[in-house]
Order: sequence, then structure tokens, then C-alpha cells
Amino acid sequence: MASNSAITLSELTQRFGGDIAGDAGHRVNGLAPLDKAGPEQLAFLANQKYLSQVESTRAGAVLISPADLEKVASPEGRNFIVTPNPYAYFARVAQVFIDLATPPVEPGVHSTAFVHPAAKVAASAVIGPHVSVEAGAVIGERVKLDAGVSIGQGVRLADDVHLYPHVTVYHGCKLGARVIVHAGAVIGADGFGFAPDFVGDGEARTGSWVKIPQVGAVVIANDVEIGANTTIDRGAMADTIIEECVKIDNLVQIGHNCRIGAYTVIAGCAGIAGSTNIGRHCMIGGAVGIAGHVTLADYVIVTAQSGVSKSLLKPGMYTSAFPAVNHADWNKSAAIVRNLDKLRERIKTLETAAEKLQDKP
Amino acid sequence: MASNSAITLSELTQRFGGDIAGDAGHRVNGLAPLDKAGPEQLAFLANQKYLSQVESTRAGAVLISPADLEKVASPEGRNFIVTPNPYAYFARVAQVFIDLATPPVEPGVHSTAFVHPAAKVAASAVIGPHVSVEAGAVIGERVKLDAGVSIGQGVRLADDVHLYPHVTVYHGCKLGARVIVHAGAVIGADGFGFAPDFVGDGEARTGSWVKIPQVGAVVIANDVEIGANTTIDRGAMADTIIEECVKIDNLVQIGHNCRIGAYTVIAGCAGIAGSTNIGRHCMIGGAVGIAGHVTLADYVIVTAQSGVSKSLLKPGMYTSAFPAVNHADWNKSAAIVRNLDKLRERIKTLETAAEKLQDKP
Amino acid sequence: MASNSAITLSELTQRFGGDIAGDAGHRVNGLAPLDKAGPEQLAFLANQKYLSQVESTRAGAVLISPADLEKVASPEGRNFIVTPNPYAYFARVAQVFIDLATPPVEPGVHSTAFVHPAAKVAASAVIGPHVSVEAGAVIGERVKLDAGVSIGQGVRLADDVHLYPHVTVYHGCKLGARVIVHAGAVIGADGFGFAPDFVGDGEARTGSWVKIPQVGAVVIANDVEIGANTTIDRGAMADTIIEECVKIDNLVQIGHNCRIGAYTVIAGCAGIAGSTNIGRHCMIGGAVGIAGHVTLADYVIVTAQSGVSKSLLKPGMYTSAFPAVNHADWNKSAAIVRNLDKLRERIKTLETAAEKLQDKP
Repeated sequence: MASNSAITLSELTQRFGGDIAGDAGHRVNGLAPLDKAGPEQLAFLANQKYLSQVESTRAGAVLISPADLEKVASPEGRNFIVTPNPYAYFARVAQVFIDLATPPVEPGVHSTAFVHPAAKVAASAVIGPHVSVEAGAVIGERVKLDAGVSIGQGVRLADDVHLYPHVTVYHGCKLGARVIVHAGAVIGADGFGFAPDFVGDGEARTGSWVKIPQVGAVVIANDVEIGANTTIDRGAMADTIIEECVKIDNLVQIGHNCRIGAYTVIAGCAGIAGSTNIGRHCMIGGAVGIAGHVTLADYVIVTAQSGVSKSLLKPGMYTSAFPAVNHADWNKSAAIVRNLDKLRERIKTLETAAEKLQDKP
Repeated sequence: MASNSAITLSELTQRFGGDIAGDAGHRVNGLAPLDKAGPEQLAFLANQKYLSQVESTRAGAVLISPADLEKVASPEGRNFIVTPNPYAYFARVAQVFIDLATPPVEPGVHSTAFVHPAAKVAASAVIGPHVSVEAGAVIGERVKLDAGVSIGQGVRLADDVHLYPHVTVYHGCKLGARVIVHAGAVIGADGFGFAPDFVGDGEARTGSWVKIPQVGAVVIANDVEIGANTTIDRGAMADTIIEECVKIDNLVQIGHNCRIGAYTVIAGCAGIAGSTNIGRHCMIGGAVGIAGHVTLADYVIVTAQSGVSKSLLKPGMYTSAFPAVNHADWNKSAAIVRNLDKLRERIKTLETAAEKLQDKP
Repeated sequence: MASNSAITLSELTQRFGGDIAGDAGHRVNGLAPLDKAGPEQLAFLANQKYLSQVESTRAGAVLISPADLEKVASPEGRNFIVTPNPYAYFARVAQVFIDLATPPVEPGVHSTAFVHPAAKVAASAVIGPHVSVEAGAVIGERVKLDAGVSIGQGVRLADDVHLYPHVTVYHGCKLGARVIVHAGAVIGADGFGFAPDFVGDGEARTGSWVKIPQVGAVVIANDVEIGANTTIDRGAMADTIIEECVKIDNLVQIGHNCRIGAYTVIAGCAGIAGSTNIGRHCMIGGAVGIAGHVTLADYVIVTAQSGVSKSLLKPGMYTSAFPAVNHADWNKSAAIVRNLDKLRERIKTLETAAEKLQDKP
């Protein structure tokens, strides 16, 4: 990166905290792994197994925890930023360098965008090509709407929201400050609700499914990030709620009237049915399925591909997935599983026989 | 809601049927739950457990079944609309209030939309910002195409279709009357078909996958609703068929040449591989996977996260999913499952031993 | 199809190889199944069970393997193109007829598209309505960008790429020649990476997730096809790599820093977590989940809905999914599975008892 994006270590600690061991005036202009970093780059140690690389690195400075610094045999002549969480520190500094390297974008509404006259867009917002903003929408300061984003009537986007291309926000939904939504995600589509209105059975059944109007919205708190092509449905009567700092990966489905507690992370391809209440600080693995109308306590972890059909009211880790094994072996086991009751019956028979035998004189 | 959207109970029964017990001229202007409704609101009783609330509600009127009305201790002085299916009735009335409260949209083509001169758009249709409609497409009466919808060559949309933002309909597909498709759904992408054209094995393998052109389309009947970011592939030779009143949730994948029978509902994240034939009135749970080239009878129910690898030719409920339990407990069970044949072997050995012992004098 | 799209058998063999048995000058203008083809149509035999139809077909010519041709009782008077792989040959010929029947599209940039002045678009490219192409992008010869496609800064699309409507390619990603991406797919969204920066436990926990900037890209080799609404995340530091001729179905999620080996096929709804390395010529079934940081050897097959949590270093077929059975039966088995350790304990007790009994005099 260009030298005009170089920063001194002391500028970094002023901004992000931490202590400097070594030359506070040393300038760095980028990040790199310990084994590849040069004198103008900052490296970090987040994993004990790379400790030896700290001795040999050519990095201009190393982010390190106080405990790890004590393990470095010869810290002399090296520069360190000492912080309890070098990995998080690294993430924050990385963002700084990206921002320095990114040319500023002109605020304003692109000539191909459509903004309804009854919408309100902050002057500092960047409205990209082919964006549409409907009546009554309010777009906050420094909001960035990429190409083709569609904002429905009465939507409210707080400051510093960034919506990537083709994100759709249906009418009436609200997104908090700094929310990031990746391309193709859909916020606020109708929940899946139909009242059965049929009479008769079998071939003689007549009637239809009657759509239940979905008049709630989706309300998303500050600092949430939502992955590409994820869908979060609007509530039926009340709202669907995503609390602060929730992080949701790609292709996740969240049904109507769910509440996702603050700081919870949800990995890709997970699906959460309607009216389910997920606690705070939960971790939902990839492709997990969670039934509707259940509750997960705070600090629940569900491992990848597991299915949750009932409430999990205690913190802890839950699982129901099998790891793949050789196909023929698996099929053998699977056939036995389908007949486990017979196996159990045979054990019972044996137990009865054993009792009789033991009673024999 | 404003009083100009108030309706008398008799206006409702004229439109939707049902009998009035009480004041037919009473006006209501909205819906609310029994415990929150006021004198200008309509409530409904669809679940026995709320029967006692009918005695105490302040609702202007209550939707109730004849059987439940008989259980109400003191119906005097209250207003009821008596109908066999209060829940479906509620859904229909809710839509009326929404329509009354929604300002009418001006028909016409938005200035930023692109409609090919060889497409035919009904004068009553509403074509939103940045929509594109290609040559040969036919757009019916009162169709609503939201921002950024893309309609391919020769597509036919029947009357009252509503496509939400960024829906894509590939060339040649047909959507029936009143079909609703939510944002980001893709109708008619190429089915997943490739002919292997390889010679040699292992490292020496050469060749490639040859794309099989997909020349069928997707044909969707009346009253179908399709969720956000769902994908329905076009057929290889013949068409993919979605019959009337099928309801499909978000992030569902339907492969080429499938047929989904009328009134079937498919929950979110389900995937149905190609050439599969699902019956009428089926219920496919969330994240269910169904293999290709299988048949499901009418009235089949597959519970969430189950996998269907063979045809299910009898109506009924089918399952293959486990509910998540404590992680350590699960791992213990999972290890035994992988070695069930050894467990069975041990039982067999015991049985042989038991027989010998019983033969002992 | 119109007769002006008719081709002689010899024109086909000149283009695609194979030998002619019969009249090399016979003209065909389309494809059809053996039992439906007429004298101007080409049929193919790819499955032994249709061998008898070759005797009775009215097809103008039949694609057939040398081995199958020997089994035809009376080949006289019929026309054949003899090729080792009739199915692949059929696929190639089908594409020819489609191309002949498709009116040529005028190259150029649609009046509603936005192309940044600092982007470079080949004159032969077709840039559709409402497309946006950002600064620094390079668009190759004959590239086709359908309605609403969004191309980020510095993206490179090689020759003959075809992106269907609403595809998003984030900044810096590269797509090889002839890559096809279906509608709504998202290439290059941020990988799912957050550093935990929390202190305290339970209710007292404070802090947040810190976003790890994702500065890698997605690099896609030649002849890859990607399905509708699929998402492939950009790398954190290095790139996410999709090698040549990989075929990916709809609604698939590929995490940051994955590498998918050449010729591998991935069916719909599969999810692959970050930093996973899939070999060449693998087949990943529908809705398969693969954990992060694992390696799959070349020629690994994972059957539908299975879960891979560890590396699979030998070629072969792997499975962990159960097929759905009657719901009540399944629940019985599932309850036993959860208590398999108790069943094993009972067997152990029996074994101990049996030993004692056998020791009895």
C-alpha cells in the first residue's frame, strides 16, 4: 500500500488502546502473517503454535497478548502492541488500512436511481445506480445503497447502514446503525401463513389455503450483519426482531415473528421457523433447522446440521447430526437403526432366558 | 385505522358468508386479539383455550364457530359472526382492511422501467422502477411488478400477478392468475443437467461435463405463492409444473421437470431434486430433502429435515430426523450407531450361547 | 423448428466427430425421444432399456454407441451416428439447434445500463437493461450481462461469460471464459468472519463481535456453471478458488477460502464452510453440509443430506443420511438411538452373566 497510508504505532494505540513495547514512532502501512510480514507491516499472534515465528519475523511490529509476550525469548529490538485480544485488534486495524486505501465515494443520488419525492435521504448518503427508494422512506447519514437496492415505503435506515447490490427491504422495516446486508438478501417478505379452508377428504376435498396478511415488520438493531441471499420474514401481527450485533451468514431463513437475541451468530444455510425465540450469545451452526414456536436459552450452541424440535432451556451444546462414513457401512447401520425395536426385543428375550437359567439349581 | 374504513357486520357476511348473532349494523374498522380488541375491532376464536376470553372481551364482534358459540355462557349483548372456520374468515377480513388502508397505486409503466416494444402490457398493470420486460412477454390486467423485476422473452403473466422486487422470470415461463412471488425468487433457471464426457481414470482422466440444454419452461397455475429467494428450475425437455394453490416458502429449491400437486405446501429451505412428482395436498416440512425421480402420493406429510430417497406411495406422515440433545450424550449414541453391526453380532453370540445353555442337562 | 435450421448428418460429424452408418446427407432439424421422433429429427440411445425402440423409431437418425449398434437386429435402411457417448453428443447437438433457433442479439450497452467511464467493455458484449458496471471492470468479448446484473470495481469477466439477471459480482473477482452464472447468484460477498471481543460471562458479558475484513476475492476458472441464488464468498486474506468445469447447482453456499477442484459437481442446497478444500472430480449431493477446514480427496462422492465433519482422504462414497420412514416407527427407533448406551450396557450385563453360567459346572 502507498506510504501515505502509513500509521505510527502510537496512533494505533491512541485509537484502539493497548501498550507499546519498542518504538512507538514506527510506521506500518499494512498487515501480514508473521512469516510473510516485512518491516512496514504489522503481524499478530493469536495462536500459541505460531509463537516461534515471533522470534524470526521481519514484521515491523507484532500484536501480542501480555501472557504471550512473556514467552518471547528475545523481545529486544522488536516492536509490540500489547493487547489482551490481538485477533480483535488485528481486525480493527485491518479495517483502518482498508478505509485508508479506499478512495472516498461522492455522496449523492446516482442519475439512474429513483427516489420518491416523499422519501427523505441524508445528503451524506450514497445512492447507487438503479436503486429505488419508495415514499416515506428515511435514509440516514452516510448510508450506502449499492446498485439495484430496493427500499420499500416507510422503511427507516439508520446512519452508516450499507446495503450491497439487490438487497430488498420491504415496506415498514427498520434497520439500526451500521447494519450491513449483503447482496440479494430479502428483509421483510411475507411470513408463511395460510389458514386451511377445506371441506371433504381425499379426492372429494375442496377449498383452498387463505393467505393470512402479514402486517408486522422486521426490526433490526444496531451492528447487525446479514449474509447474501438470506431471508428474514416480516411478522404476522407483531414484528420479527433481530437484536444488536447479531451476525447472520448467507442463505439463512428466519421465519415470521422470530426474535434473535443480541450477539447471537447464525451460520450459513440454517433455517429458523416462525415465532421462535433465540437467546443472546447463541451459536447456531451451519444448516441447523429449528422448529417454530420454540425457545432457546442464552448461550445455547447447536452444532452444524442438527435439528431442534423442542425448546432448549439450558445453556450448552446440542447435537443431532451424524458424520458421513463409508456408504456401505452406513447403509448397514441405517438398516439396523430402522429395526432397533427388534434388536431391543431380542435383548429382552435374552434377559428373560438368563434369569431363568440363573434360577436353575 | 380511520373511520372511513369501517364496515358493518352485515357487509362482511354479505361478502364472506356466515351468520350474525347480535347487531348486524355494528361497525368495525380493524382486527385484534380477543384480549386487546376494542368496540370497533373484530376478534376471532380459533382455539378452545381462549374460550374464556370471549366472556370478557371488549371486541365489537367475535368470529366464532357454531359449536364454540354454544359454549359461551353469556352471549347476550355481544355480537358474533358465526362461521365454520373463524381463522380463515379472519384472514379474509384482514385482507379487506389492508386493502382499505392501502392508497391505490397508479397503473402505468415507471419512467425508469424498460418494456420492449414487442411486449404487451395491460393498461391496468403497475410496472415499477427499473423493471425490464423483454420481447413477446404478455402482462395481464392489474399485474404488479415491483422494482427491478426481470421478465424474459415470451413470458406470460396472467391477471393480478404480483412479483416483488428483483424476481426473475426466465424466457417462456407462464404464471397463473393471482400468483404472488416474493423478492429475489428465480423462476425458470436452467435445470442442473450435464452429460459426463470423460475418458480415463484417476489422474489420467480427461474430458468435460457437457451441458444439456434445458428447453422446457416452468408453468405455474393460479393462486400459487412462492417465497423469497426460492428457485424453480425450467424443465430439460418437458416443463416443470406447479399446480394451483401450491404454497412455497423461502429458499426452496425445485429441480427441473418436477410436478408439485395442487394445494401442497412446502416449508422453507426444502430441496426437491429433478423429475420428482409430488402429489396433491402434501405437506413438506422445512429443510426436507427429496431425491430425484421419486413419487409422493397425495396427502403425504414429510416432517422437517427428513430425507426422502424412495417413492412414498401411501398417504401418511414420514420422518427421518433426530431432535438435538446434549452434545456429549449424542456423540456417545452416534459412536454406537456407527458400530451397530458389532452390537448385533454380540447379541447373536449371546443367543447362540443361550441356546446351548438351555440345552444343557 | 424451421427448415432453415436443418443440418446434414455429415455436417454434425464434421463438427462433433463420430461415424455415420446410413445416409450422410440426411437432414435433421431437431431432437426428440426415440418413441416420438419423426424423419427430420435426431434421437439418441443412452440406456439399454430403450434398445427395442431403435427398431421401431421413425427418427431420421439415431445417436448410438458402437456396442449398442451391434445389438440392433435390423439396422438396414436406418441412419446412425455412431459415437462412444451418445448422451454427450446429444447435448452438444441440442445446443446447436438452440443456437440456430435463437435470433442473434445486438451487441452494445442498453440505454438504461450504467457503465462507469473507467470500465472497459468489449464491443461484442451485450450489456442489458439496468446493468451496472463499476470502475476498473473489464468485460470480455461476447459477454452477456442480463437485466440488472451488478459488476463491482475491478471485476474481470473473460470472453463468453453469461450472467443472468440480478447476478452480483463483488469488487475484484475474476470469472474465466464461458462461465455461466444464473439469476440472483452472489459472487464475492464477505466471508463470515468475526473476532470475539467479549469480557465477562453470562448476564455480565460485554463486548462485541469485530468484523474481520475480507480482502481476498473469488477466482473462477473456465467453463464453470453456477446456479440461481447460489453464494460464493470472497476470501479473508487469500482467494476463494473454483477450478475449471466445476458445476454448482442452485442455493449452494461456499464459504471463504474454499477451493473446489476441477470437474467437481455440487448439487442444490449444499453448504461448504470456510477454508475447505474439495478435490477434483468429486460429487457432492444435494443439501450436503461440509465443515470448515477439511479436505476431500479427488473422486469423493458424498450422498445427499450427509454431513462431513472431518477430512475424507480416500476416494469413495460417503453417507450419513437416513431415508424417511413411517413417522411412528421412526420415533420408536429414534428414542432407542438416544439410549443406545443403555442397550449396550444391557448386552454387557448379559455377556457377563453368560460367562458365569458357562463356567458353572
